[in-house]
Amino acid sequence: MSERTLSYSGGAISFILETRTAENSAAYLLGELQSMKERNPHLKILDVGTGPGTISVGFARNIPDGHVTATDLNPDVLKRAQEIASASGVGNIEFQTADIHKLPFPDETFDITHCHQVLTHIKNPWDAIREMLRVTKPGGIVAARESDIETQTVWPDSPGIVKSHQWVKAMMAHNGGSPTAGRQLLSWALKAGAERDQITHSFGTLWYSTDEEAHNWTRATVSQIYHGRAREGVEFITEQDFDEMAKAWEEWSDKDGGSLAMLQGQILIRK
Amino acid sequence: MSERTLSYSGGAISFILETRTAENSAAYLLGELQSMKERNPHLKILDVGTGPGTISVGFARNIPDGHVTATDLNPDVLKRAQEIASASGVGNIEFQTADIHKLPFPDETFDITHCHQVLTHIKNPWDAIREMLRVTKPGGIVAARESDIETQTVWPDSPGIVKSHQWVKAMMAHNGGSPTAGRQLLSWALKAGAERDQITHSFGTLWYSTDEEAHNWTRATVSQIYHGRAREGVEFITEQDFDEMAKAWEEWSDKDGGSLAMLQGQILIRK
Repeated sequence: MSERTLSYSGGAISFILETRTAENSAAYLLGELQSMKERNPHLKILDVGTGPGTISVGFARNIPDGHVTATDLNPDVLKRAQEIASASGVGNIEFQTADIHKLPFPDETFDITHCHQVLTHIKNPWDAIREMLRVTKPGGIVAARESDIETQTVWPDSPGIVKSHQWVKAMMAHNGGSPTAGRQLLSWALKAGAERDQITHSFGTLWYSTDEEAHNWTRATVSQIYHGRAREGVEFITEQDFDEMAKAWEEWSDKDGGSLAMLQGQILIRK
Repeated sequence: MSERTLSYSGGAISFILETRTAENSAAYLLGELQSMKERNPHLKILDVGTGPGTISVGFARNIPDGHVTATDLNPDVLKRAQEIASASGVGNIEFQTADIHKLPFPDETFDITHCHQVLTHIKNPWDAIREMLRVTKPGGIVAARESDIETQTVWPDSPGIVKSHQWVKAMMAHNGGSPTAGRQLLSWALKAGAERDQITHSFGTLWYSTDEEAHNWTRATVSQIYHGRAREGVEFITEQDFDEMAKAWEEWSDKDGGSLAMLQGQILIRK
């Protein structure tokens, strides 16, 4: 194992999450947000599963006369989100712990209810969409963007990277999530009770290809491999496999012409 | 087999190709084209492998004081392209038969040399990129967008659709093409001699989800299945499989919440 691997910190995953912005992760929503803001500058936005909060802060910056409520199940990550919001100087945002399955808000509270990479991790995502619709005002929007991890495409490929992909997908499935969330998102919205003509559906991509992005992704992935070493439900992965996977990612990030991409499902539901 | 299947015409594939526009298929290039046009309104664009020409006509419309040369290996499809160009009233475009491996133009002729879904079908795509670079002026752009058919994602899935996907990929590979062109495009550009810092690399998506789009895709795919019935190099597909594949697509296009998406690799090379 190289020195570089040993020096990876657990903060690497958080670092990747913190590169998310409203612009790079919620572009499919921003046009609609802009139109709604022109009609009503005092928009109320709920961002469910905010993580380190960088997307929520972007929303807050977009609606200086409005207000963002950002929630997460994990109170620890909200401390980091609060730091990031304070450092960015954005004041119209508040954070609170909440479960997407039972949001602590009355019916019809928000103009926009948003989540990003949340539904992919839960067992009955249509119930969560129904709950998001409940707290949204009539005429408001529920917005979601979810990865389709199954489509993750890495070039050049190698057996260690293929194994790493299988490990991630198996862990997600074991934890009740879905590695094919992106392609299923539209059907989940219908199952939540939305009509087809209320839904604007699209696909986007998440991708990396510059040296810096590839190195950051590798740091986060190798960190996840070594700090997680999660094998519950994925017993087909051995301790040796972890070493092979980490080595494969490092080799990948050092190669010219490398890239990584995956499809993202995107929906806007007009309530 | 349903009546609908029997009425599908061979024109369905052409119909799908004709839905391509400069906006939906070359958006990654249009910003750069606009900047170049502001510096020089008399841009010369070469579009290699134009097919029915709809993207080329879009380029011509974008540069009213410039000129587009659109080529294809197949003279028959160029007749259709000429019809479409004439019907659209665009005059600054000409069509000619040409092979991407040996373009009939002197060095440094064009400001922009473009192709769309061409490199994915040929054996040594880096040689074609090198040829495109040859005919491009210094300071000009070579642009390419290529599908990554391997990532084609269909929801809901079925055994017939999986088989259809295997058939298409195997046919492509048998004919010397690459079902993973999208992810390899950057590495091909490097192999053609471009430096990494000359290349702007990105990924886009091709996707369908409205009823009309799903029906059009199904018409084209079923038409390909029945009119092609190509089995050379894909002997694992039986006559019965063709029926199963066609039936699976029809069932898919009749379902609510269906969608289809795949990644697209995109490069701009600054010469």
